[in-house]
Amino acid sequence: MIDFNRHPDSYKHWTLSFDGPVARLAMHVDAEHPYKDGYELKLNSYDLGVDMELADAVQRLRFEHPEVSSLVISSGVDRVFCAGANIPMLASSTHSFKVNFCKYTNETRLSLEDASRGSGITTIAAVNGPCAGGGYELAIACDEIYLVDDSSSTVSLPEVPLLGVLPGTGGLTRLVDKRKIRRDRADVFSTLAEGMRGKRAKKWNLIDDTWPKSRFDEKIAERANAAAAERPARGEAGKGIMLSPIVPEVTETGLEYEHVSLKFESDKRTATLTLRAPTTPQPQDGEAYLAAGDQSWFLKCFRELDNALCQLRFGYDEIGVVLLETRGDMKALLEAEKALFAAKDHWACNEIIQFVARTLRRYDLTARSFFALIDNDSAFAGVFLEAALASDRTYMIDDPDNPVSIAIGPLSDGALPMSHGITRLHSRFLSDPSQAETLAKEMPVLEAEDADERGLVTFLVEDLDWDDDVRIAIEERASLSPDALTGMEASLRFGGAENCDSKIFGRLSAWQNWIFIRPNATGDNGALIAYGRPEPAQFDWRRT
Amino acid sequence: MIDFNRHPDSYKHWTLSFDGPVARLAMHVDAEHPYKDGYELKLNSYDLGVDMELADAVQRLRFEHPEVSSLVISSGVDRVFCAGANIPMLASSTHSFKVNFCKYTNETRLSLEDASRGSGITTIAAVNGPCAGGGYELAIACDEIYLVDDSSSTVSLPEVPLLGVLPGTGGLTRLVDKRKIRRDRADVFSTLAEGMRGKRAKKWNLIDDTWPKSRFDEKIAERANAAAAERPARGEAGKGIMLSPIVPEVTETGLEYEHVSLKFESDKRTATLTLRAPTTPQPQDGEAYLAAGDQSWFLKCFRELDNALCQLRFGYDEIGVVLLETRGDMKALLEAEKALFAAKDHWACNEIIQFVARTLRRYDLTARSFFALIDNDSAFAGVFLEAALASDRTYMIDDPDNPVSIAIGPLSDGALPMSHGITRLHSRFLSDPSQAETLAKEMPVLEAEDADERGLVTFLVEDLDWDDDVRIAIEERASLSPDALTGMEASLRFGGAENCDSKIFGRLSAWQNWIFIRPNATGDNGALIAYGRPEPAQFDWRRT
Repeated sequence: MIDFNRHPDSYKHWTLSFDGPVARLAMHVDAEHPYKDGYELKLNSYDLGVDMELADAVQRLRFEHPEVSSLVISSGVDRVFCAGANIPMLASSTHSFKVNFCKYTNETRLSLEDASRGSGITTIAAVNGPCAGGGYELAIACDEIYLVDDSSSTVSLPEVPLLGVLPGTGGLTRLVDKRKIRRDRADVFSTLAEGMRGKRAKKWNLIDDTWPKSRFDEKIAERANAAAAERPARGEAGKGIMLSPIVPEVTETGLEYEHVSLKFESDKRTATLTLRAPTTPQPQDGEAYLAAGDQSWFLKCFRELDNALCQLRFGYDEIGVVLLETRGDMKALLEAEKALFAAKDHWACNEIIQFVARTLRRYDLTARSFFALIDNDSAFAGVFLEAALASDRTYMIDDPDNPVSIAIGPLSDGALPMSHGITRLHSRFLSDPSQAETLAKEMPVLEAEDADERGLVTFLVEDLDWDDDVRIAIEERASLSPDALTGMEASLRFGGAENCDSKIFGRLSAWQNWIFIRPNATGDNGALIAYGRPEPAQFDWRRT
Repeated sequence: MIDFNRHPDSYKHWTLSFDGPVARLAMHVDAEHPYKDGYELKLNSYDLGVDMELADAVQRLRFEHPEVSSLVISSGVDRVFCAGANIPMLASSTHSFKVNFCKYTNETRLSLEDASRGSGITTIAAVNGPCAGGGYELAIACDEIYLVDDSSSTVSLPEVPLLGVLPGTGGLTRLVDKRKIRRDRADVFSTLAEGMRGKRAKKWNLIDDTWPKSRFDEKIAERANAAAAERPARGEAGKGIMLSPIVPEVTETGLEYEHVSLKFESDKRTATLTLRAPTTPQPQDGEAYLAAGDQSWFLKCFRELDNALCQLRFGYDEIGVVLLETRGDMKALLEAEKALFAAKDHWACNEIIQFVARTLRRYDLTARSFFALIDNDSAFAGVFLEAALASDRTYMIDDPDNPVSIAIGPLSDGALPMSHGITRLHSRFLSDPSQAETLAKEMPVLEAEDADERGLVTFLVEDLDWDDDVRIAIEERASLSPDALTGMEASLRFGGAENCDSKIFGRLSAWQNWIFIRPNATGDNGALIAYGRPEPAQFDWRRT
């Protein structure tokens, strides 16, 4: 089991500090503490462990520090801002780890943009030294980028010219789609190993401004204070929701959390993910949610689910099919959801809802086949039904003697958008958006036939056939090529709109995955492997 | 040199016939005439040669048959509509060929949709037998799909379950984005090797209707006639533009056409693509264009460019950088463009403009680095400037003694959209759409500094530095990893909007390229290689 829990008191690579509404994250990567043995984290380069701390910091700012409305990210060491992802780490990792590392770091950078959009925290990259590759990809995920104007500090994306891979942590996409840099300039910048200094970088919109070293800290402080003043604090300092660690119990069959369990049948390459509805009364308004801290069912359940998804991605790559089941009292769940939704203007409830949304996007982006099983004991209502809608298929039992229902909750009407910005109901009913709107408005409770009729179920299965039909479907799925399934699911899950976020995962990551297994990158003489060696990389020059 | 010329009189795999406004294409693939030796084209499966004939037929319908306003595509053999791309051909092809084959077949299918949208030809897939994989991808590229209702005819996408690859010729994307099939149903359909028969296929919107064999031909004829009647003929039968072959002269240095040349410096991995402006008076209106047949400069020049791009893709994979240069009389070019644009409501001029648009999209989608070189002798006006805008970079000489100009023409204002539906000016100026609109409206003629000021040039280069600077830039580009460049260019060229077409190339093709080089598909025991063998494929089950 991987420990994804981090805490500012024990960060090895970052320092989080506060000055009223301004938070500061200083990066000072400890070269001697890599996530795995075998490489050093030189020059503020990062690996999964460094990124876990960054993800933790952004999460804590949102929950624990409602007084914060601007965040400055800078380097805490001399002569470098960040050198990007650690190359020896990438060169020595498996393809699967590289892909999941990239996905996680992409999600962390998206969480910075989400914090600005959803929590009103303006993010400022104070680039106080050379900033290369993933370093610039971190900066470009911030709202504003300021570069120190000195003789050595540049921003650069040297992946293509030096490593033969892409700036795949959103870099290429954000150049043209976020900062809307002219495509020919983006082309030049992405092939210029040495990068660009302040003046030209500003002219090309790679940064927002550049100031000399002597005035840099002062100008950043001015801008951070002004940015904080532009956006109201969400709440009072010291009155946040403190996040305690999520630590599943490791059992013989899998991982057991309070509201979630993840059980593995490795020989069948399947896992069962069980989500349980609340069993105790839940907070009825924002202040009660605040008082409940991180123990409210909503926050705890989705923190556990988030942890489970990360465990699955990094620790159980042989699992191809995940069966989603739900248990408990559907009515209790719906009541909790209605109360949370009614209190959504309270900052704490807003944060919980947005966290649920991020977790469900993590689910959408997990490269496993998800089948939701709506059986007799299930509780597919509200956010649990939303997880079923995020799944590749939904099987529902049709048992006249013991009818089971599903129910749409208020959060399904826009509060939980997918990466490409639309609701799961809209994404499901592209042929008839009014169907999505009617369901979201009516929030019906539906028994099997009605649920099928309204398009919410893939297969209705008669109770007598349930065990066999579901078993066969699972076995069939688990027998298919895992690569083909990954590509298929990435294509079918995101119909309709596209935006910067979805282009990162759908276009940029897909190309990067391809490049990562090409000999020109990761062969014995490929550029990623040869980086740092005296002899240059050797390429097979054939273009495809 | 590859002969891309085809003619209905010598088709080996299709028969094109006419009945007033209804055209019919019957597929009867000759198993004994594959494009390359080493496999048989059984069961109406296709390869590049089969697709060249289809592309030729669609092109000829538009130019040679203005009386046609509906097209029926069916099988001309018993017991199968089309079995899709030939598997032994794919299994025995290089990665580069597979990728370029897929790109070409994708462009052919897009040309069917373009013919409906741009020429008013309703396309009808008359699926009169089993229709699998690429066969269904051909059908789903048509406006309407009708399936015979008998005991054996199904539509299916068996790529994932049987071959471990994707339905990558637009299949997955068109399921959810064109036919807007529910994602869970698309998931089921894409993993169901045996496919679906008429009734369920209709319910799921995989087809538009199904009729028994006894009435099928009659119903198709009724529908084809009705479709033809719904859309007016563009022109009179027998008064089309006949397309003669495009046959470049193969010289010591490359390929020489009348208005285009493509010269190779293979040791430098570069080619120079030269486009030449008209040297003779060009037609002034639609009737004159019709009278000029396929010899008007516009049509001939872009047919030659289209041929050159196809030659480059399939025949010269070691070429990484293409230098675009233009020669001739810029004013003559602009006059020709203005006359063509003024006559755009004439069907023949409309067809020429749309063909120019398709050719420029082929340019956008060619996986080579394009640098446009605006030197003293250049003629970068109108459509030639559009090709510069389609290039990754533009270098312009700044020579006060011999100033050179560029000029925007009327076709740049929407007549030549990119795959993702926006103009190249809009795609260039995402940060300020008004800049694109002003340029398109004013159609300025701009000398070097103004051209740079208005954002149309990547680098201004002083005349004394021109040779060295350009040479160095080319050498640098040619030294980079070809794979990384392909991924980078695919990411930077298509900023902004996305649509079904661009999702096919940016999302689906990127995943397919990845899957094509995974051992699970193309390793010794991969599914694509093992297909047809008695022993099943063996997979590395790890999910990424």
